[in-house]
Formats: sequence, C-alpha cells, structure tokens
Amino acid sequence: MVRPARYDILFEPVRIGPVTAKNRFYQVPHCNGMGRAYPSSMAAMRAVKAEGGWGVVCSEQCDIHHSGNHQREIRLWDAKDIPYLAKATDLIHEHGALAGVELAHNGAHVSNLESRTVPIAPSVEATRGIFPGTARAMDKGDIRAFRRWHREAALNARRAGFDIVYIYAGHDMTLPVNFLSRRRNQRTDEYGGSLENRARLLRELIEDTKEAVGDTCAVAVRFSVDELMGERGFTADGEGYDVVEMLAELPDLWDVNVSNFDNDGATARFTDEGYQEQYVKFVKSVTTKPVVGVGRFTSPDTMVSMIRGGTLDFIGAARPSIADPFLPRKIEEGRFDDIRECIGCNICVAYDRAGAPFRCTQNPTTGEEWRRGWHPEKIEVRTTNDTVLIAGAGPAGLEAARALGQRGYSVILADSNRELGGRVTRESRLPGLGTYARIRDWRLQQLRSMRNVQLLPGNEVTADLVREAECSLVAVATGAGWRRDGVGRHHLAPLAGLDRLPVFTPDDIMDGRLPAGKVVLFDDDHYYMATVLAERLVTEGCEVTFVTPESMVAAFTQYTAEQRRVGRRMLELCASVHTSTALSRTEAGTAHLACVYTGRETAVQADAVVLATSMVPRDGLYHELGQWTPEEMAQAGVRKVVRIGDCLGPGIIAAAVHSGHLFARTLDTGLTDWTPYRRENVELDWDQPFPAGSADAGVGV
Amino acid sequence: MVRPARYDILFEPVRIGPVTAKNRFYQVPHCNGMGRAYPSSMAAMRAVKAEGGWGVVCSEQCDIHHSGNHQREIRLWDAKDIPYLAKATDLIHEHGALAGVELAHNGAHVSNLESRTVPIAPSVEATRGIFPGTARAMDKGDIRAFRRWHREAALNARRAGFDIVYIYAGHDMTLPVNFLSRRRNQRTDEYGGSLENRARLLRELIEDTKEAVGDTCAVAVRFSVDELMGERGFTADGEGYDVVEMLAELPDLWDVNVSNFDNDGATARFTDEGYQEQYVKFVKSVTTKPVVGVGRFTSPDTMVSMIRGGTLDFIGAARPSIADPFLPRKIEEGRFDDIRECIGCNICVAYDRAGAPFRCTQNPTTGEEWRRGWHPEKIEVRTTNDTVLIAGAGPAGLEAARALGQRGYSVILADSNRELGGRVTRESRLPGLGTYARIRDWRLQQLRSMRNVQLLPGNEVTADLVREAECSLVAVATGAGWRRDGVGRHHLAPLAGLDRLPVFTPDDIMDGRLPAGKVVLFDDDHYYMATVLAERLVTEGCEVTFVTPESMVAAFTQYTAEQRRVGRRMLELCASVHTSTALSRTEAGTAHLACVYTGRETAVQADAVVLATSMVPRDGLYHELGQWTPEEMAQAGVRKVVRIGDCLGPGIIAAAVHSGHLFARTLDTGLTDWTPYRRENVELDWDQPFPAGSADAGVGV
Repeated sequence: MVRPARYDILFEPVRIGPVTAKNRFYQVPHCNGMGRAYPSSMAAMRAVKAEGGWGVVCSEQCDIHHSGNHQREIRLWDAKDIPYLAKATDLIHEHGALAGVELAHNGAHVSNLESRTVPIAPSVEATRGIFPGTARAMDKGDIRAFRRWHREAALNARRAGFDIVYIYAGHDMTLPVNFLSRRRNQRTDEYGGSLENRARLLRELIEDTKEAVGDTCAVAVRFSVDELMGERGFTADGEGYDVVEMLAELPDLWDVNVSNFDNDGATARFTDEGYQEQYVKFVKSVTTKPVVGVGRFTSPDTMVSMIRGGTLDFIGAARPSIADPFLPRKIEEGRFDDIRECIGCNICVAYDRAGAPFRCTQNPTTGEEWRRGWHPEKIEVRTTNDTVLIAGAGPAGLEAARALGQRGYSVILADSNRELGGRVTRESRLPGLGTYARIRDWRLQQLRSMRNVQLLPGNEVTADLVREAECSLVAVATGAGWRRDGVGRHHLAPLAGLDRLPVFTPDDIMDGRLPAGKVVLFDDDHYYMATVLAERLVTEGCEVTFVTPESMVAAFTQYTAEQRRVGRRMLELCASVHTSTALSRTEAGTAHLACVYTGRETAVQADAVVLATSMVPRDGLYHELGQWTPEEMAQAGVRKVVRIGDCLGPGIIAAAVHSGHLFARTLDTGLTDWTPYRRENVELDWDQPFPAGSADAGVGV
Repeated sequence: MVRPARYDILFEPVRIGPVTAKNRFYQVPHCNGMGRAYPSSMAAMRAVKAEGGWGVVCSEQCDIHHSGNHQREIRLWDAKDIPYLAKATDLIHEHGALAGVELAHNGAHVSNLESRTVPIAPSVEATRGIFPGTARAMDKGDIRAFRRWHREAALNARRAGFDIVYIYAGHDMTLPVNFLSRRRNQRTDEYGGSLENRARLLRELIEDTKEAVGDTCAVAVRFSVDELMGERGFTADGEGYDVVEMLAELPDLWDVNVSNFDNDGATARFTDEGYQEQYVKFVKSVTTKPVVGVGRFTSPDTMVSMIRGGTLDFIGAARPSIADPFLPRKIEEGRFDDIRECIGCNICVAYDRAGAPFRCTQNPTTGEEWRRGWHPEKIEVRTTNDTVLIAGAGPAGLEAARALGQRGYSVILADSNRELGGRVTRESRLPGLGTYARIRDWRLQQLRSMRNVQLLPGNEVTADLVREAECSLVAVATGAGWRRDGVGRHHLAPLAGLDRLPVFTPDDIMDGRLPAGKVVLFDDDHYYMATVLAERLVTEGCEVTFVTPESMVAAFTQYTAEQRRVGRRMLELCASVHTSTALSRTEAGTAHLACVYTGRETAVQADAVVLATSMVPRDGLYHELGQWTPEEMAQAGVRKVVRIGDCLGPGIIAAAVHSGHLFARTLDTGLTDWTPYRRENVELDWDQPFPAGSADAGVGV
C-alpha cells in the first residue's frame, strides 16, 4: 500500500538545536517499571521503538542525585551508571533515532527511602504521600550544589550517548517546577516572589546545560503548562503561559503537557484523543523552537492536523508507542490498518507504579523484548506440523490465533457467540470502555488476511467438535464467569441469605438482565467493573448503594491514575458510598453491611444486590477433555489440551492477551516450568571503594 | 563484669538434626528490604548478627519459583542465585553461626508482578490484596512439580552453604499453609478435606527435604499455631495443636508463632514482651524436637524463664536482633546495661514493606553495614582535635554525643530542659509509646561512662554559650515543632478561621495544655501522633471527631503492620471518624469538613481543634550562628555549624538517630554530597542464554 502524500509532513526531518530528528515521531519520556532494576529489559524495550521508526526515543526520568531519588527509575548519580544507559543509547542509535534523557531531581516529591537523605525543596514542606518526613529549604549553597549535580549529570548523559538532555520541570514533581510554583515556593530571596524570580532556577539550569553539553546535545524543557486547578496552579492563560513566554527561546525544544500526572496520563474512560490540545496550543505562538505534546495520538489524520494546525512540531507519544512500537513505520508504509491502537487503559502506568516491568493490554511483547526475546512484529515461523483448535475468541483466543497464524500454523478459532471478542466485546459496551473494542478489532483485522486461520463464530467447542476438528492441539480459551455467591477477597465462604432477594452479577448486567429500584452494589474486585456497572445502573434509573471493604472506591485505580476521578464520580452518582465496609448478609428487602474494622452492622434497604467480587474459570471443556483416555486422545488426533487466558486464571485483559501470546510462542518448544526467561541479578561488587568525604558538601549535615 | 551463672543455660549448644547451634540465640527469618535488590547489604547485615553471637542466623523468605514470587526477597529459582547467597553464608560461618534459609512459595498471596505467571493455590482463589488476578487450583501434576521445585531449591540451598533448610508454612502466606487451611483448601482429593489430607503436602515437603539434604542440613518447619480468628483459622487448642501433634517428630526443628504477620509482628503499642507464649507453649509438650519462638525478647531473665519454664529451646528474635545484633554477646559477657533494646515500633517492617533497605530506630547502623561500612559496636577513633558542642539532647543529639564519645571526641551536650531526651521523653508519655524511652535510656546509660562527654541539662544553647564553650564544631539538634496553622500535605496555605476557636498542637498536649469538650482532631501526618493524642484526649473526657484526608486512619501504619488495630481503636474511641475528609475552615463553635473528592462540606460542632499536620524545624540558633562573620566564628573558635535530626528535616525518630550518627561518623572527613555510599547495580548479562522449553511443564499453558 502506498502512503498518501498528506502524511508526508510527518516524515520531515526536524532540527532540535544541534541535532536533527529524522521525522516528527517523538517518544516522550515515560516510566516503565524496569529502569535501574531491569536495565537490560529497559534498553531492549527502547531499542524496539527506535526500530519501529520513532525519530526520538527518550528515557524515563533519570535521577541525578541521592537527595531526590525514585528507587526504580534509571539514575545518573555518577559514572558508575553510564554503562547500562550507554547500552540503551547504542541500540537506539543503531536504528537511526535520537536518544533523549530526562534528568530529574524529585525534591519533596520523594522520601529518599534508599539514601535516607533529608529531601530538599524551595521551602520547608512535608514530603508528598504518607511517608513521614519533611523537606528542608535549600539555601544558596544548596542551589549551587544542585546546579553542579545537574551539570555533571548532563555531562555524564552525553558520555552515555544521549542526544537530547532534558530539564524536567513538569508534573509538580521536580525541583525546578516546585521553585516555579507559587504554592510551593515561599522564598523571600531572588529565587522566590515574582515569577521572574521563581523561574530563575529553571533559567539557570537551561543555561548551565547548554553551556555544558549544548554544542552537541539538544537541551529540552518538559513543562506542564496547566495544572487544572485554576489559579492555585499554572494555567495555560496565566502563569503557564508566562513561563513559556519568558523562557521561549532559551531551550532547544519544549515538551509540554498538563499536570499532575493523573491529568497528563488520563485514561480513555475520562478523556479522548487530543485532549491536551486546548492547553498546549498557545506554546507555538510564543516560541520559534520545536514543540512536542501528547494526547494518546493513534490516528494519522489527527497527527497531521496537529502539525498543519500549528499546535505541535512533534507528535509526542508515550502510551501509543507502547501499544505499537512500530506505529511510525506503519504510517510510513501506508499500513494504517496494522496500527495497534492504544486503548488508554493505563495498565502500563499501573504496573510501573507497582514497581514491576510494565505491561500493555494491546502489546503482549512489551517488557519481554530482552528477557524472552519477543519482538512486537516478528515471530518465529512454525517448527511443527501441529494444527490448533482454539475454543473461545476472547482476548486470549484472538491473540493466540493471530500469533499462531503469523507463525504459519493452521488454526481453527471457534466461539459459541456469533459476535467474536468475548469479554472484550461485552465490556466495551459498558460506560467509558468503548476503546476496549480495539483489542478485538485489531486482531480480527489481522486475522482476515490469514488464510491459515479459520474463524468459526457461533460454534461452541464441544468434545464432539474437538473430535471432528482433527487438530493436534486444543487451547481452551473459554473465559471466566463472575461468581454469584459473594466469595472473593473478603469472603472466602458464600454469603448467607442470597436466596432471599434478587442477585445480579456483572455477567447478568452485560447480558442485559438489570435490577431495578434500590440496588446494593458490592465491590470486592477493586478495579473498574463495579464502578462502570454503577454508572450503567444509575443511567437505568437504579438507586445505587456502593459498598467496598477497601478504604477507597476501586482501590486498584490508584495504580491506573484514575482513582480520584472514579471516586468522585461514584460519590456524585451513587445514593451512598460505604468504604471499609462489607456486605455481610442479606434478607428480603434488606442488605446488612459490616464495618471491616469493628464488625458493626448497619442495615440498608435493598431491592437487589449486585456482586462484583471475583471470577471463576469456565473450564468445563478442559476438564471434560482431561477425562479422555490416551486412546481417546489418539483417536481424536489430539496430543495436548491446554487452557489459556481467563480460563486458566481470570484476571485483567492484558493478562489474557499475554497468555494467548505465550501459548502461541511456545506451543512447539513447550514451556519450561523452570525459570522461563533471562534474569537480571545484582552484581556483587565488594571491591568497590567507599566514597571519600568532602568538606564542602551541599547536602546533609 | 561477670555473667551470673543463671544465664549459662542460654549458652548451651543445642542439636538440630545433623547440625548443632552453639547457643540458644536464634535469629528467625525476617525480611529486610534488601534481599535480591541489595544482596551485598543483606549479606553484611546478616554477618554482623553472626559476629554478635547469634547461634543461628536465618535468611528472609526465599522464593523458590517464578510462579509464587515476591519481587524483593532473596530467591533460589535456580543456580544463578547461588553466588550472592553463598556470600551471606560464608560470612555467617566465619563467625561460627549456623545459616538458615526459609524456602517459600507464596501461592495466591502474590500476583507475580514480575513473572506474569498465573498464581497457584490449593483451590481457585482471588489473589490477596487489590491487584487483579485469580490463582488457579493445582492439579496433581502441579503438586508433583511444586515438590520438585522445592526439592531442587533445597539442594541449591545446600550448595549455597545453608545449614538449616526451612519449609515455610506460616502467616497464611505460603502454599503448604494454604493447603492446611480449611478456609482456603476446598479440594476433594487426598490433599483436601480432613486435616490429615490437608497436611499431606506439608508432610511430603518435610520428607522430600529430609531425603534431599537431611543428612547434612537440619530441616525446619515454620508454622503459625494460632491465627487469632477463632474457629475460622488455626487455634492453639484446635487445629494448630493438631498439626504440630500430627507431624511432631518429622522435622528437626519447630519455629512457631502466631498469624497473620500483623499479629506475629505486633508492636509494643499493642503487645508486651513474650506475648506469644500463651499460644506456643503447648508445642514442646507434643514434640521432642527443639522449638523456637519469638516475642520481642530483650530481657535475659525472660529468656531464661522461657527455657527453664519449658516453653522454648531457642530464644527466637527478629526485631531484637536488628536493634542489637550483639545482644547474645552482651549477655554472654554480662554487659546487660549495654543491651540496646528493641522498642517494638516496627519501623523495620515499614521500610521493608515500602521496598527499601530497612532501618531501625535504635540501631542506626543497620542497612549501612556494607554500603557505608558501619558496624553497630565499632567506630573509628577520632582523627582530629575537634571539640563538639551539641545543642539539644533529643534522639539526634544523644546519638551524636554517644557516637562521638565512643570515638574519643570531647563533647558538650546541652539541653534547655532539665530532663534529657527531647521528643523521645515527651512522646514516651503518650498512650502506648512507653518503650520509646529506651531510645533515651540506652544512650544516657552509655554516656554516663564516658568522661569525654559533658552533659548540661537545663542549659539552653545560645550564641553566648557557643562563644563560651570554645568548641570547634557546633551541632544544632534543637528539634522541630508542630505547626499551628493547618499547613501540611493537604493544605499548603494556612487554614482560615483558626483565630475563632481554641487551637491545639501535639506539642500543647504533650506539654499538658489540653482542650475540653468537643474536639476536632485533624490528622494530616498519618503516622501515630494523631491517634495516640486521640487516646489521650478521650481519656481526659473529650469527645473526639477524627478527621483525615487519607482514605484510612493513620495510613502510614499499614507499613508498620498496625493499621487494623489503630483503625479499630479510633472507631471504638472516637465520637466519629471521617476519612477522605479535610478540615477546611473553622469558625467559633464550628469546624467545616470537606470531602477530598467532591469538596462537599459538612459542619460539625467544635469547642476546639487539634492540628497534627506537619512540623517545622526549630532552627533559630542555626540561622543566628549563620549570620556570624568569619571573624566572629574565629573569635569563638568555631569552624563549622551544622544541623542534625529534626532541626535539619523533621521526620521519624529513626531518622533523627541516624542523622546524629551520620554526623558523628563523618564530622572529621566531611560528608560528600556526591554518591555517599557504595551501590549495588544490576549486572548487564546479554550473553545469558534463553531458557530452553520442556514438554512436561507443570505451570502455565
């Protein structure tokens, strides 16, 4: 397919100070849960993006000093950290991309759990979060020291091979942005007071960095132009504007977004593609320097309009570059249908926040590039003559069929429903989850071009069908169902009294069987399901009492950066919200709720209860086939039956997709149950000298 | 000093299967936040305990397989993990101690964030916590595979040099204990149903391990005999008893405690020394094998009574061995006054749970043994002729004086109060915090024997006193005070209306200035302070409304394993508890509270408000001396003025003690503000082969 000329603008080279990006595709800095703990995994993940055509590939934030450190992200405390970063930049360069590094000092945003150093900030401030601690106010010596650390980190970044060096002044997190902030900076010296004064440190850092490395490296500033909190913070028509205008020509590039991260990284449930445009569009009007911005861009037409409309010079992306590292190349080659669009679910964010290598619902290979050698586009051709029957075309079945089809295996994918997609199709109809359909749509689109994959919608896989299909392998991907007995994390035994009033599960509601009147919704799942059901039920006229044993609504959404929005929405929509409370028993017309601390019970009126507690595998077929004798297996030509996806272990959709992919990658070799991937262990370095002291320390006593 | 003969029993050798412990001091397995992420730090920390006289030094739990893994703890997935564990056992052996390893598979207790493997369990079960996922039920093949992994791990443990190999069946966390549990095991095969059946797996694991390594290694079982939940769990007079009786002679050692960890690791606020005796004392009556148990033992007399009374054979310790790694040796040498007693605050637990190297309030050197070369008992003798004036005898000042005194420096320690100890003394009088006085008492005890340290109670350090003291170094350790304006994490600007009703701070209450009537207590600190104040105020007859912007009371106490108890106590004591709520403004007789999600306000009656929000350093002296000219400095003979402890950055007491110690260690060399300690980086290992598959995998598809 030939790319229409209107997309050519996306492939123009763009100069950034002393370096030039080969195109307008710019992977902005993003965390990934690998960082310093899994540096080889991190390097390989970045390299795949460079291979996929991104003109610029940036690191996550990079700690420059022990006095302001995240524990997980990469760091450049000193030269000891150069080698693993150089590994990443080497690989990025091999594919012709520029490598950017986001130098960061997290000030009072962190508690320095590893280093135990007292955090520093423009003014005395309790550290963010719930860890005890107070940051001290930096004196002039501290500011000089900080500039020295930043400059040294820039030099080490160049030594590590980076082409673009960031000053990170975004997301209300780092020292330069906290100096900028009038609510955090209470200084009375030349670094506080007027905006000019509050911007002094950022200005100095830009100048220092240009002086140190600006001859060969571009110097970028990442700044959040609007904090979405009105006059207490930066606004795009207030101080956010003023900051950019004031420093307009000083950096070589502006990377702009909204703050805090929950706003910058808002999910598709709450925002649409391009949602940041209204805030960042002023930037190009006040600077001649190139501007990069984000907005979950996956549509080539939207990208072109961002450039042509004068909003951006670079199409910034974090999440879309994770879902499809080859997005630029696919556009370049006119393969628009092959784009695997980000669904905006923030599972990537969630597992990074949890301190694990991140994952992606759409791209099961991310995080696995180094340790399992997985590539998002390439896959080993088939090595056996196996034929595969997959029972169930949900996320696991679809992905298994697609990846096996790509490998050249002969596959039959059958599903009892006429409409394929399984839970993905069902859930995508719930409020706010429309983008989930992309998981199905991309896979069906890919499958359509595969002659070796046969789709059988409306065909339930039975033992008879297995016999007829004559496939050597059977993958049971029949999903899971929600429990109807209240068992989950809080209750290990069924709830009493459920026979005395109408009980509904998420499956009922997705099937269109709805309660009416006063509904007690018990969430012991803690992700999105209960809260989107609440939205649905309220729309249908129900009066919802939301009950959860966790201390907050949808507690897991803290990790997906949605909890504030989800919690607020539930409080606005529901008749009442009971946290730290369990549904303890029911009787006709009444639900009894119990405080999880004291056991104190309260009764609420209930015409029905909805139980979103936990799921059980729908694994009847698997166990039925498990009863077959070796002779019956041989007669049916089946050598192995496996379960994949929710049928193996119900969980998030990303886990189901990954499970299907893993099966497709390993069905011929077999999985090992011994350590199944390459590992990253810490080096024993007992010859390392103790650092020497110095009399003029800027930090500490 | 000579040790009285009654303590000799503690130093008898005790045989454990094929090995013999040189005495009865047994460091039971405990996590430490270092594990696989900081393996050198971990090894050195364990070695110091061996040096301190512990007859047995165990590891934390050691993951044996990717299907049940904690991310932070040590692991023995395969031979790749042997070297760093061998480093630890080598060092432990150098000091004549036995090394124990606690092999663990965490089943449904974990979500396998790194490996992405579906968790396994006796029966289908939602994974613990709030991470999405469901464990699958193990079939017979899985059980065989699990036994194979466990056996292989035992063999690798022996290769790594361990003398005692544990089967970990405790704390409701691991596969063998979950098979034992009637509320988690719903199996209908020979591994479910009767206790005999539920104990089958544990029995097999003991037999497997003995067969594999039992000729040279002792095989231990760690089991929680009571879950403190009545008949839903094990009880010491029910199934907990039956399990021990049934398997009594099978292992070489029983390591027994109560479950879950919040109960086993209960703080001094809620339990006293020896609190587990009532539960574990039956064990010795049903087995002839040696028994180890815990109970925050720090009193040699209690220890002796545990042995003589027939409750225990070994004095188990986790926290007391952290607070004083040399506890056994001090008893051995009759140096009872030198014992640095654990205060039972669980700061160690907290930072382990946070994924950082742990710390200890009493022992500032723990976690620093390898990276800074700190030893809990030894310290470099002084290298300069500095004399030191320390202003303030709180935790930082006391520790600085003590460590400097030990180094041989001439020190003056002055405090404006006649009673020394600063915040430690004040806080130790609050409900439940009595053990905090040990922080002061141990240091004063040590200082009394130092002729080079002069104590000046009742002497406020002023600029004049600095001039008179003629010390070359001044350390300002004047602490911090609680803010009276409501500023903290939630409010960055002072609250409106505080002039319209009586306002109290924690300092007021500790000084004996108390409110009366209806009191609104606003906690934006989230550790213990607000909750112990609430206890105090209720005792004094106040009606307390507890308000916190966090979703739970004292949110940080999740990390110290106290939150369930603290939350319950507040609900029982307070008139009402408002979570996710901030104090928004006050007027005469009324406090306005606002929901942190919606901003919706509610008004409550208030005769007074108490603000436990945040602290500011009391650093007037530091800044006053900072105004001195070089001439004035020279005239006073002062070459440097520093701040330490809360005066530098208000935080937990452990941070203040560490700050004082750091100053004492580095005052002559100077601190470097460059990376101040040796670091542990991950090895780049790109030549590592990908693991080969195998057709008979027991886990996964």
